[in-house]
Amino acid sequence: MDTAEFRRRGKEMVDYVADYLENIEKRQVYPDVEPGYLRSLIPEEAPEQPETYEDVVKDIERVVMPGITHWHSPYFFAYFPTANSFPAILADMLSGAIGCVGFSWAASPACTELETVMLDWLGKMLNLPEEFLAGTKGKGGGVIQGTASEATLVALLAARCRMVKRILSDDPERPEADIISKLVAYSSDQAHSSVERAGLIGGVRMRKIPSDSKFSVRGEALRKVLEEDKAAGLIPFYFCATLGTTPSCAFDYITEIGPICNTEGIWMHIDAAYAGSAFICPEFRPLLDGVEFADSFNFNPHKWLLVNFDCSTMWVKNRTDIIAAFKMDPLYLKHDHQESGIHTLHTHTHTHTHSICHWQIPLGRRFRSLKIWFVFRMYGLRGLQDHIRKHVALAKEFEALVRVDERFQISAEVVLGLVCFRLKGSNDLNEALLKRINSARRIHLVPCQLSGRFVLRFAVCARTTESRHVQEAWAHITQLATELLRHVER
Amino acid sequence: MDTAEFRRRGKEMVDYVADYLENIEKRQVYPDVEPGYLRSLIPEEAPEQPETYEDVVKDIERVVMPGITHWHSPYFFAYFPTANSFPAILADMLSGAIGCVGFSWAASPACTELETVMLDWLGKMLNLPEEFLAGTKGKGGGVIQGTASEATLVALLAARCRMVKRILSDDPERPEADIISKLVAYSSDQAHSSVERAGLIGGVRMRKIPSDSKFSVRGEALRKVLEEDKAAGLIPFYFCATLGTTPSCAFDYITEIGPICNTEGIWMHIDAAYAGSAFICPEFRPLLDGVEFADSFNFNPHKWLLVNFDCSTMWVKNRTDIIAAFKMDPLYLKHDHQESGIHTLHTHTHTHTHSICHWQIPLGRRFRSLKIWFVFRMYGLRGLQDHIRKHVALAKEFEALVRVDERFQISAEVVLGLVCFRLKGSNDLNEALLKRINSARRIHLVPCQLSGRFVLRFAVCARTTESRHVQEAWAHITQLATELLRHVER
Ligand SMILES: Cc1ncc(COP(=O)(O)O)c(C=O)c1O
Ligand SMILES: Cc1ncc(COP(=O)(O)O)c(C=O)c1O
Repeated sequence: MDTAEFRRRGKEMVDYVADYLENIEKRQVYPDVEPGYLRSLIPEEAPEQPETYEDVVKDIERVVMPGITHWHSPYFFAYFPTANSFPAILADMLSGAIGCVGFSWAASPACTELETVMLDWLGKMLNLPEEFLAGTKGKGGGVIQGTASEATLVALLAARCRMVKRILSDDPERPEADIISKLVAYSSDQAHSSVERAGLIGGVRMRKIPSDSKFSVRGEALRKVLEEDKAAGLIPFYFCATLGTTPSCAFDYITEIGPICNTEGIWMHIDAAYAGSAFICPEFRPLLDGVEFADSFNFNPHKWLLVNFDCSTMWVKNRTDIIAAFKMDPLYLKHDHQESGIHTLHTHTHTHTHSICHWQIPLGRRFRSLKIWFVFRMYGLRGLQDHIRKHVALAKEFEALVRVDERFQISAEVVLGLVCFRLKGSNDLNEALLKRINSARRIHLVPCQLSGRFVLRFAVCARTTESRHVQEAWAHITQLATELLRHVER
Repeated sequence: MDTAEFRRRGKEMVDYVADYLENIEKRQVYPDVEPGYLRSLIPEEAPEQPETYEDVVKDIERVVMPGITHWHSPYFFAYFPTANSFPAILADMLSGAIGCVGFSWAASPACTELETVMLDWLGKMLNLPEEFLAGTKGKGGGVIQGTASEATLVALLAARCRMVKRILSDDPERPEADIISKLVAYSSDQAHSSVERAGLIGGVRMRKIPSDSKFSVRGEALRKVLEEDKAAGLIPFYFCATLGTTPSCAFDYITEIGPICNTEGIWMHIDAAYAGSAFICPEFRPLLDGVEFADSFNFNPHKWLLVNFDCSTMWVKNRTDIIAAFKMDPLYLKHDHQESGIHTLHTHTHTHTHSICHWQIPLGRRFRSLKIWFVFRMYGLRGLQDHIRKHVALAKEFEALVRVDERFQISAEVVLGLVCFRLKGSNDLNEALLKRINSARRIHLVPCQLSGRFVLRFAVCARTTESRHVQEAWAHITQLATELLRHVER
């Protein structure tokens, strides 16, 4: 494909994308295919000779679309949202064309620099404490991770490194393996599975702190577990607080937990993967109060801030904590200089500006800040706030509908764009309802379990979801519920 | 921005991208900016109100381009290539619009399924042993990681888990921390820094095996270190072999190392980040001989196979080894089912088809296989082979030029698209030459050190590099060398 053909095909693709998104609500939100459906639709091997673009493009509808769960359909209410906006798509095209790999400043200065400035912009929008910003001289700063899971892991590794160093500085003879075997990381029993996974990767113990009746961790609950663990000779080193839990969008009490962590020398990381975007609205910012006690904070603009995947923004108070966890020890570095300078030149030359590859698991990275820049400028802070507020209002609208129907109950406080609800009745009944809903394919939901109860989650997801979709969804759910209840009574 | 405006702006962006790539060789390959240049060019905060698209787009040339290192300029000979092709850009647009997050089969079946089939396609192109393919029933299979660094880490974690389990099954009383403190991972002293980093993250010892005079690890060298370490009570568990080292594109002797690893129960992972793409050509496939001894194999189509970043393909012989390393222990899983079913439903529902999130560090993932599919079909195997062969021929052309100039020497065997060369003379002299080259800004190179010598690396990188660019580059280098030598003599 030469440039001339790319011009033509690119414009066709722009139209295809526009058509897809414009008409997405006419597509069935959840696919009918069975596992393994795709293999038989395409050849077993790559072609020897080039195919024509027509051949390729016609397979989008034949092969791909039948197996797509349409996350951007206004009838998609499952999981949490994943962001999608036109300015982000445009910026991503540009990023793909530039195709630089920003593992160091020199590898593409604009890539590192725009990222740092965008994280400052966003930090200010969230009213983060100054310490988290890079500014021109701060110790803190932000970085784009691929996902919240990576941020949680990076923070845990930094915390592990900080605690090991601290203990070794008091007791240089203590074997590192002995220290690590005593470390304990904590999170809510409502925390995302990626927290447990981070512990598994980091090779440390994990303990879940019981959440309260509103699914939040309180300071007292943490304190109790800490006392037990310290009495048993363990070393608490990391607490991953969740603001906006995956099951029910509950909020840990970081104003209570934070001071405890600070006193105990425990690294507090905040995972606000979904809810974080809302903190750009003054009315939701109080939910972030207590962030001043945190060592690191992360949320996903790729969930709810109109910046396409992947873009998970992370701030730390102290860059050197993170960098220390990923840097080779000085001896190796020295060796590295002597023996294989290329590594050095890939990563260590520009120490006067921080090499972002020391902040993350992967070495290479795309020019991801471009899409933040495009989105923030094309929407403005106001436009982004409108987006959040609209989704919250739609969730409240749905909540109100549920509340007037006596057969249903609300299962958790509705704070942002998620409504947890269920039929009054058994888990089996609710499971049957969900099955009917998802089998009908008009809307798509996923469940959660709260205090042993099977609960339906209604998350406002698509950028284009409007009141009519919510009303329609509710009418559909109640109709299926009526049928189900009639069926059960019989 | 509504759909109508997106149609217009999208087409403008297609033209901008086409213009950029068509005229890239007129741009200065390496930027003039100083660290911190960008911050002063843009406001300190995000705008309150939306800006116009014109405002945003004119800043591409004003703010971004002055700070770009143009990786796709035919005058870029630094690092290793990063891929860029029109079909991949088109596929990425589509992937952005679909915007699904493929963490499980249900989250978007096409995303998981196309990935599995594409990895089989590519596995066949590489003539990988059948065991690495998923087929319809195999135990092995492939997955797309973001980067080679992640693949190296994932393999190390799987190896750690396998060895810990193996030892515990013989000696169930032995504390896990004690086992982990005895584990040793190995790689060449030429291995990429990401291997060392994986060891750091996994909390295990790392040892470098000395490479031979051609920068390759031989079986004997590994065997010697293994004997030492076993005698010292350590537990060898992982060897990361490199095919195509970063400094000089050297190849470890996996036909010698592999059998040793198999006998000793050591997990052999192969990192062929750059060189792997070449193995689709029958004449280079012998470089991969010995892969049959490996537990996992990885390379980056996003380096040299025309699939834009990020796309690092990894195959394993035994999927369950990988999954085991990331899965929570059964007790937690049970708890998970009871208390927070949402996690379960996010990740564990479709166990009859493997959930790819158990193969990687991040949970979310883009629809990355689309770009493989587009590229392989639009180029065909033949077109991809042509691309590799052209780059290798250009490197040989450059090597021949170097060899006829008596002032220069070749520093490592030229096997693929990388030429390591230097002026006969001191490291300082060569450092001065590189400085002149990069300061002139007509071409861009990075150095490496080989056996204590400062060496210049000439890597054929851009898809559009032709003989004339190589000839021009050499003429330029020799002119600068002549000036330098005259200056030094004075
Ligand atoms: C609270 C929370 N943390 C982490 C994650 C995982 O996000 P990612 O896919 O970015 O790792 C989620 C996803 O829904 C989440 O809700
Ligand atoms: C041999 C080798 N391994 C790993 C890497 C790192 O690749 P990635 O950025 O995909 O992690 C490189 C990069 O050049 C490499 O040459």
